[in-house]
Amino acid sequence: MSLDTFHSEVDPVATGQDMHRLIAELFPICRSITGDGLRHTLRILRTYIPLEMREVPTGTQVFDWTVPKEWNIRDAFVKNSRSERVIDFAKSNLHVVNYSIPVQRRISLSELKEHLYTIPEHPDWIPYRTTYYKESWGFCLSHRQMEGLTEDEYEISIDSTLKDGHLTYGEYFLPGDTQDEILISCHACHPSLCNDNLSGIAVAVSLAKHLASLPRHYSYRFLFIPGTIGAITWLALNEDKLPHIKHGLVLSGVGDDGKLHYKKSRRGNTEIDRAASHVLQHSGTPYELLEFSPYGYDERQYCSPGINLAVGRLSRTPHGTFPEYHTSADNLEFVHPDKLGESLAVCMKILSLLENNGTFVNLSPKCEPQLGKRGLYRMIGGQSEAGLNEMAMLWVLNLSDGSHSLLDIAERSGIRFESVQRAAKALKEQLLLREKFDFVSTAAG
Amino acid sequence: MSLDTFHSEVDPVATGQDMHRLIAELFPICRSITGDGLRHTLRILRTYIPLEMREVPTGTQVFDWTVPKEWNIRDAFVKNSRSERVIDFAKSNLHVVNYSIPVQRRISLSELKEHLYTIPEHPDWIPYRTTYYKESWGFCLSHRQMEGLTEDEYEISIDSTLKDGHLTYGEYFLPGDTQDEILISCHACHPSLCNDNLSGIAVAVSLAKHLASLPRHYSYRFLFIPGTIGAITWLALNEDKLPHIKHGLVLSGVGDDGKLHYKKSRRGNTEIDRAASHVLQHSGTPYELLEFSPYGYDERQYCSPGINLAVGRLSRTPHGTFPEYHTSADNLEFVHPDKLGESLAVCMKILSLLENNGTFVNLSPKCEPQLGKRGLYRMIGGQSEAGLNEMAMLWVLNLSDGSHSLLDIAERSGIRFESVQRAAKALKEQLLLREKFDFVSTAAG
Amino acid sequence: MSLDTFHSEVDPVATGQDMHRLIAELFPICRSITGDGLRHTLRILRTYIPLEMREVPTGTQVFDWTVPKEWNIRDAFVKNSRSERVIDFAKSNLHVVNYSIPVQRRISLSELKEHLYTIPEHPDWIPYRTTYYKESWGFCLSHRQMEGLTEDEYEISIDSTLKDGHLTYGEYFLPGDTQDEILISCHACHPSLCNDNLSGIAVAVSLAKHLASLPRHYSYRFLFIPGTIGAITWLALNEDKLPHIKHGLVLSGVGDDGKLHYKKSRRGNTEIDRAASHVLQHSGTPYELLEFSPYGYDERQYCSPGINLAVGRLSRTPHGTFPEYHTSADNLEFVHPDKLGESLAVCMKILSLLENNGTFVNLSPKCEPQLGKRGLYRMIGGQSEAGLNEMAMLWVLNLSDGSHSLLDIAERSGIRFESVQRAAKALKEQLLLREKFDFVSTAAG
Repeated sequence: MSLDTFHSEVDPVATGQDMHRLIAELFPICRSITGDGLRHTLRILRTYIPLEMREVPTGTQVFDWTVPKEWNIRDAFVKNSRSERVIDFAKSNLHVVNYSIPVQRRISLSELKEHLYTIPEHPDWIPYRTTYYKESWGFCLSHRQMEGLTEDEYEISIDSTLKDGHLTYGEYFLPGDTQDEILISCHACHPSLCNDNLSGIAVAVSLAKHLASLPRHYSYRFLFIPGTIGAITWLALNEDKLPHIKHGLVLSGVGDDGKLHYKKSRRGNTEIDRAASHVLQHSGTPYELLEFSPYGYDERQYCSPGINLAVGRLSRTPHGTFPEYHTSADNLEFVHPDKLGESLAVCMKILSLLENNGTFVNLSPKCEPQLGKRGLYRMIGGQSEAGLNEMAMLWVLNLSDGSHSLLDIAERSGIRFESVQRAAKALKEQLLLREKFDFVSTAAG
Repeated sequence: MSLDTFHSEVDPVATGQDMHRLIAELFPICRSITGDGLRHTLRILRTYIPLEMREVPTGTQVFDWTVPKEWNIRDAFVKNSRSERVIDFAKSNLHVVNYSIPVQRRISLSELKEHLYTIPEHPDWIPYRTTYYKESWGFCLSHRQMEGLTEDEYEISIDSTLKDGHLTYGEYFLPGDTQDEILISCHACHPSLCNDNLSGIAVAVSLAKHLASLPRHYSYRFLFIPGTIGAITWLALNEDKLPHIKHGLVLSGVGDDGKLHYKKSRRGNTEIDRAASHVLQHSGTPYELLEFSPYGYDERQYCSPGINLAVGRLSRTPHGTFPEYHTSADNLEFVHPDKLGESLAVCMKILSLLENNGTFVNLSPKCEPQLGKRGLYRMIGGQSEAGLNEMAMLWVLNLSDGSHSLLDIAERSGIRFESVQRAAKALKEQLLLREKFDFVSTAAG
Repeated sequence: MSLDTFHSEVDPVATGQDMHRLIAELFPICRSITGDGLRHTLRILRTYIPLEMREVPTGTQVFDWTVPKEWNIRDAFVKNSRSERVIDFAKSNLHVVNYSIPVQRRISLSELKEHLYTIPEHPDWIPYRTTYYKESWGFCLSHRQMEGLTEDEYEISIDSTLKDGHLTYGEYFLPGDTQDEILISCHACHPSLCNDNLSGIAVAVSLAKHLASLPRHYSYRFLFIPGTIGAITWLALNEDKLPHIKHGLVLSGVGDDGKLHYKKSRRGNTEIDRAASHVLQHSGTPYELLEFSPYGYDERQYCSPGINLAVGRLSRTPHGTFPEYHTSADNLEFVHPDKLGESLAVCMKILSLLENNGTFVNLSPKCEPQLGKRGLYRMIGGQSEAGLNEMAMLWVLNLSDGSHSLLDIAERSGIRFESVQRAAKALKEQLLLREKFDFVSTAAG
């Protein structure tokens, strides 16, 4: 595998800037869980990676849910009696409650206020609100803006449509040496919000581009889907694929300057949970491990009891715990090229670990093999300390009894995975180890 | 089950005062492990709950033990040469070593002193001593009182009898929906001592009264028995009943103002151990969990290796760790109505948890069910935090795969059992859950 | 078993002085992994214990290794142009790199320096170096000594031989009641170094002498072998014996004044690991437990994956972590009679625990047996605390269900093993316990 060397070759600064540029390109579009904003977004992503766009008709039954009507919007505003647009969708698509039904009428200030949403604690920020599953309408605005509204007759216009159509999502499948898959999923339904979740989209696109150019043990499946209903739809329509998904990552909120958080899968101690823990532990940067809980992003669906995939989530500051969350302050300044680059690098290291986490069998298991005659050992004895690589070799030999993976060995020895992997490679070249499972023959099965 | 709502409806103050009154009523009686004091006590309890009184003849072999002779006492004193009663059983039944054989004679001070017991560190308290299994006699008195004794000829009189008779105990069985039983056991052999164990008796009586008026999944068996020999006797004569006992609690020392202590069963992680831990953890008051040890009260017998029941012990300050233990200072002032009420409330919560600790199966296990269309979910999305009840519902749905009880879910989520139970109830009403085991059909078996 | 009483009867001071005298006797000999120095050493040990000397021919294949040529040395020096011996093997055998090939020539200072080894941080100490598996030569000397060497023509002489011969080791087998064995292994290949490992040899000899005079459940096998190649050779030639080895200890570096360290076996929780932990925990002296790692002494071989014996290591300050390690400063002053005595005493306690770690069955498992009628219990009840021995008896009775050894009971109760053992003995004498396994009949099998 060459994923290992790859992640050290990625230039996180340049790649981070590329990702930030993609976020900037996607930022203005008014996305939702259905509709043309989502389609437009996926078409832009298609200029980076050859993803397939899927369309699922309104009314399709997906487990306990039904694919909703498609929502589109052209314009929306609130005008005062002097015909000034005091709230204007053209300025920010957050101004309209997402999925608002069409409205056209004149109302008083007090009636209007029943449909306005603000954040008093952050009076300059516009909140983000949705009404996907209840037909309703509303406007979001800064608290300061609302306080400036005077008694007046206001003209309300939401030029939207809500009718039968499709739910759209993007899917990109990268075949590997085996049918075993790693799933990378991110939600693509939020309008002008950068961290949540244009950052996840940008990291996923960058991952996909890089993986496409590398040899892969695993196949990779990237999903760009509307949150909740998109994951449910994909799972309902692709149940036959689930047995192939061995590991998965939900990417969300990976561009802010908070520390990295890995949220474990429902099962809690799967290989990807351990891989992510190991990578973060040796990352040299602050991080936190979160136990699974059934609240959050689409890991809720992947980790529902009847699905129960080994899917964790990588985020930086967890959703809901930073004030900019779901507000207009989650903007282009809130996400940072270097943080995007760091998130990408951590993903690559996790995937590299999974790609290389073989289980080996020591072919000379009775006592230590003589490393010296193979050039793997210090030649003059009696020195007080053996080097780290030697320790990695000794650990790999000692635990390669067919029941310990390289990650098991890294965890028990406290040595970082890359060193353990290099030691295994050197020992295999000396015919002191063989792989327990032949990946190629598995792929043929 | 309605145990759940019950425990919040008990008025701990009023019930605590009722319990304290019962303690005061029982306090003057000279109880022992056999005899009329114990019978008298059980007859008083019978005015509260319809318990059965059992009589087991002296000489009955009970496992490794033999039911001892019955002991009764009418009077006892030590008179000085001026015929003054310098030690008088009529003033406190603690003055006579419990199970003292009859004595009538005149002796010197030095001979008398060989039969006197005091507590030098607490010179005003009378100790409590017994000589059940060795025929002997003695008097207990305050150290100050003993220091006042002068050289003299003393008249000793213990007007007791020790002859073939019976060992008496009380048993109250409350049938429930199933034959599975919860055992509540307390020792009723101590004379004028309040915390040890009139407090346990009072809480058990109160529990029994309240449970009698409620629907019950479990059957309940209350034992009011002499310590050690009573538990051994009951177990030896009722081996056929042991398979039905699923959980049990020994109640002792539950009226002092120390913090609550739950001592785990020998098995250490049984359902009642976990239920008690959970209830105490969410009780809002200080508490301590004690690992099992083979020293203590009748849990020693219930948790002996050949019996090995899931029986824990609820106490406040553990026996032997407070100076008033087994002295005249364990009196009516040492036990407090509010503490008795709190102990009762904790018992009720533990029993309520056991009664309601079902295991459910999510009927919509693939992805989350759509709670919104069932009125179980916030209607406007995008808010930063879901409420606690919603979290409880999500946890119940996520873990109800047939292998997690509600207590498992409460433990993993950190949410208190009552919230989890309410969430399960709401989900079951919406046909999103079914119980894994039908309790009623089990009861028929 | 009487090992129990034995270890308290050993006089650690006198025995420590005996061990120190043996170290002093062995100190001057130039040992190596083969050759006459090793033979001479074993012959001296034979005056203490009747060990067998084994000779394995050069060229014998032992797993992945080959028994090397035998090395012997008579003299070695470096003379300056005035014929003064500026480096002299006769003064310290550390001066010659162990296994140096024969050399005889005149060279310049700069050429000489390519073959010199010093320790700049400790300018007065001579380092210890070896070149077992690479034909080479060299001298070791103090840094100060090297700095005094002037430009000159030097005469180099190493009067050694390296040719086909034998690898020698010593083996002493002490039969016990069963074929189950405890292995005690120490390396005997280091020249004039005291802690590493004349200390291990001295403690092993003392152990062997003492064990020989005691009844033994286990058989004991003592190995005095060259490090690494000796352990590999013994294991390769004795594979049939491995199933009998139930426990083992490598002894090395047990004479310095650092705290005791026990390094666990690869399996990590074997009976000897737990026995050593228990003994150290109750030793009253500072100690440390080390997890297994595949670096160290011959536990590397005993714990290789294809051998995987329950062998731990007892040391004081671990090798490589004290500056005197592998230098001339590891001399007679560096090891202390009292520390040798303490190490011996701890070994004896560990072995005593293993010898006595029976599993018993409570013959009266339903409720507690009546200890009082057997004289095992306080006669007057009501005291606030039971003594420790009583607690040990209660624990032994409670856990002797056939699935807990005495060590299990000691660990769970927190009571030291000797008290648990005494309690079991008392209970067995009262016919309240029987041993689960009859050791004698096992031995016959």
